[in-house]
Amino acid sequence: MAKVVIIGAGAMGSALTVPLERNNHEVCLWGTELDERIITALRAGEYHPKHNQPLPSSIKTYYAYQLQEAMEDAEIVIVAITSDALAMIFKRVIQYLHEGMIVVSVSKGLEYSTSGDITILPHILEELLPNQLKNKIPIIGVGGPCKAIEVVWESSTSVTYACKDVESARKVKELIMTDRYNIEITEDMVGTEICAAMKNAYAVGLGLAEGFKNKGGFLHNNTKSALFSFAVAEMAILVKALGGGLASVVGLPGIGDLEVTGEAGRNRTLGEVIGAGLQAKDAIKKMQEEDITVEGYSAIRYGYELLKQLEPRGKLSLKEFPLLAGLYRILYEDALAYETIIDILQQCTGKYSWDI
Amino acid sequence: MAKVVIIGAGAMGSALTVPLERNNHEVCLWGTELDERIITALRAGEYHPKHNQPLPSSIKTYYAYQLQEAMEDAEIVIVAITSDALAMIFKRVIQYLHEGMIVVSVSKGLEYSTSGDITILPHILEELLPNQLKNKIPIIGVGGPCKAIEVVWESSTSVTYACKDVESARKVKELIMTDRYNIEITEDMVGTEICAAMKNAYAVGLGLAEGFKNKGGFLHNNTKSALFSFAVAEMAILVKALGGGLASVVGLPGIGDLEVTGEAGRNRTLGEVIGAGLQAKDAIKKMQEEDITVEGYSAIRYGYELLKQLEPRGKLSLKEFPLLAGLYRILYEDALAYETIIDILQQCTGKYSWDI
Repeated sequence: MAKVVIIGAGAMGSALTVPLERNNHEVCLWGTELDERIITALRAGEYHPKHNQPLPSSIKTYYAYQLQEAMEDAEIVIVAITSDALAMIFKRVIQYLHEGMIVVSVSKGLEYSTSGDITILPHILEELLPNQLKNKIPIIGVGGPCKAIEVVWESSTSVTYACKDVESARKVKELIMTDRYNIEITEDMVGTEICAAMKNAYAVGLGLAEGFKNKGGFLHNNTKSALFSFAVAEMAILVKALGGGLASVVGLPGIGDLEVTGEAGRNRTLGEVIGAGLQAKDAIKKMQEEDITVEGYSAIRYGYELLKQLEPRGKLSLKEFPLLAGLYRILYEDALAYETIIDILQQCTGKYSWDI
Repeated sequence: MAKVVIIGAGAMGSALTVPLERNNHEVCLWGTELDERIITALRAGEYHPKHNQPLPSSIKTYYAYQLQEAMEDAEIVIVAITSDALAMIFKRVIQYLHEGMIVVSVSKGLEYSTSGDITILPHILEELLPNQLKNKIPIIGVGGPCKAIEVVWESSTSVTYACKDVESARKVKELIMTDRYNIEITEDMVGTEICAAMKNAYAVGLGLAEGFKNKGGFLHNNTKSALFSFAVAEMAILVKALGGGLASVVGLPGIGDLEVTGEAGRNRTLGEVIGAGLQAKDAIKKMQEEDITVEGYSAIRYGYELLKQLEPRGKLSLKEFPLLAGLYRILYEDALAYETIIDILQQCTGKYSWDI
């Protein structure tokens, strides 16, 4: 039995209480200032407002001001904060970290490092650690197809835990895995995290194809599936350029997570409304008015900016990414979705040699 | 302009009249004895009974007894016959073939060759050719995500044409491709055809996960997406064992076609009703009573038998295929679907090294 502290009481952080409780750990769920309503509901014995499902009654909950109390004697710290708030929250957690602890990041996305380079989130966390803790606290990244609500329901799930320090990954795997929450481990942090971030971008593209049926009355499943395979190919080129491995792209973090993200969710929905004819700028405006965060929208920008950082360094060529470039034009420059996608299929068919 | 004869007036054969007509070819659609009603409808100016869509009015239609007339001066012969009737029909066509013609097979599946080995359909066609035509008539196999009805609608589509003779594949590509029907070419016939056949088998597995929501009330998208990635991994191992290439598996013929097949169709539906609780034997019986052919059902058996043929030759180990073996147990031995799939996720997570 270990003391596991979950930082962030949103959908994914809270869902992980279920496998942790199955394994009889001491589970502490800490909410940020934005999670106050969630912690209050859980303490009142109500369902989690995000899942509308009960969480295990044995877990302990903590309000934002109780971070110190929550972190006392923590062995595993699971960070489950949206990428835009990750650094801000992690800075508050750092003072309670010490050697012997392991950090697991289930946040997904890309961010600017202090050098200005766009990078994966575990690198951002590593960078924030004070010198005496650098390379002393293993940081594990998580990928693979994992809708939070299905972890609560205990639908069978398979995920990937990535860490340079395989022993730590193995330890955490043993602590968290159940017969319904399966974990594989890999050393390929870059591949796992790039796929975790970029699948949101490409899922917007899959959503476009779904939306086309509302435009012309015709299904575009052929289009969607072609885009799916081109998305995988582009993720592979990007991952390779950054030193990651093909196995992550064609395994759970890449095609597995892209599949589940393209099935349902906000990324797909954003694409769907644009595919159906709404102009991108109007779709985004509506989204912002409703205070909805669509990770794929920023992932398209971060991904595209990353390509532009890597190209002059000779790591890759923008020409290798007609799909991501097309998504950028549709989402950020109001290019016509239908015509752009037709053009992308023409450009991408036969393009990828997989000689990578 | 070329004379193109399509053998078989079912959904896919008929759909290809659309891109062919766009390119102003002389398009001849020949129906088998089973297609009589279709040919009669088309001649009466009615919609195609399978798509419920009109076909180009310029195409010529032929009844079964008019095969000789249809084949006169043919340059390209597109064979679009279900795998179980393919050899029987092709034997009738052979007498009209001569050097200079190219055969395109859009049939998908596996069959027993005369040696008793299970093999891909273009090999069956090659074997049927008389000695003086062997290696003289290029045979092209077709893979990739392609719902026939969407080709009729001209939804953007990308497919793969595979042939040892790249020049012939290139020629046919130039004749058929349009701005909505995109074609890539590859020499990897084995990879393309194995994926085309096996994706039907694995789509039944994806359907199971869809059906689970009707069993317990919970979605199993995580399960479905994990199965998707395991299916791709198993197809890769099988393709490699047979000398095919990874690029086909992770490109349009593999993940692209699996994606579209898992979205909708009879393979998925068969899985779905079993996943929802119907016993496999009852689902199959109902299917047979309604005279519905589900390619995935036989693909599971052919695939499994193929593994059993290859294992003693040291080409692979049955242990590398927990998913296909599990699907065989569910479909042919009435194993419990839900419990089997939970077990498969446990077995497959972390199993595939992609060191292939």
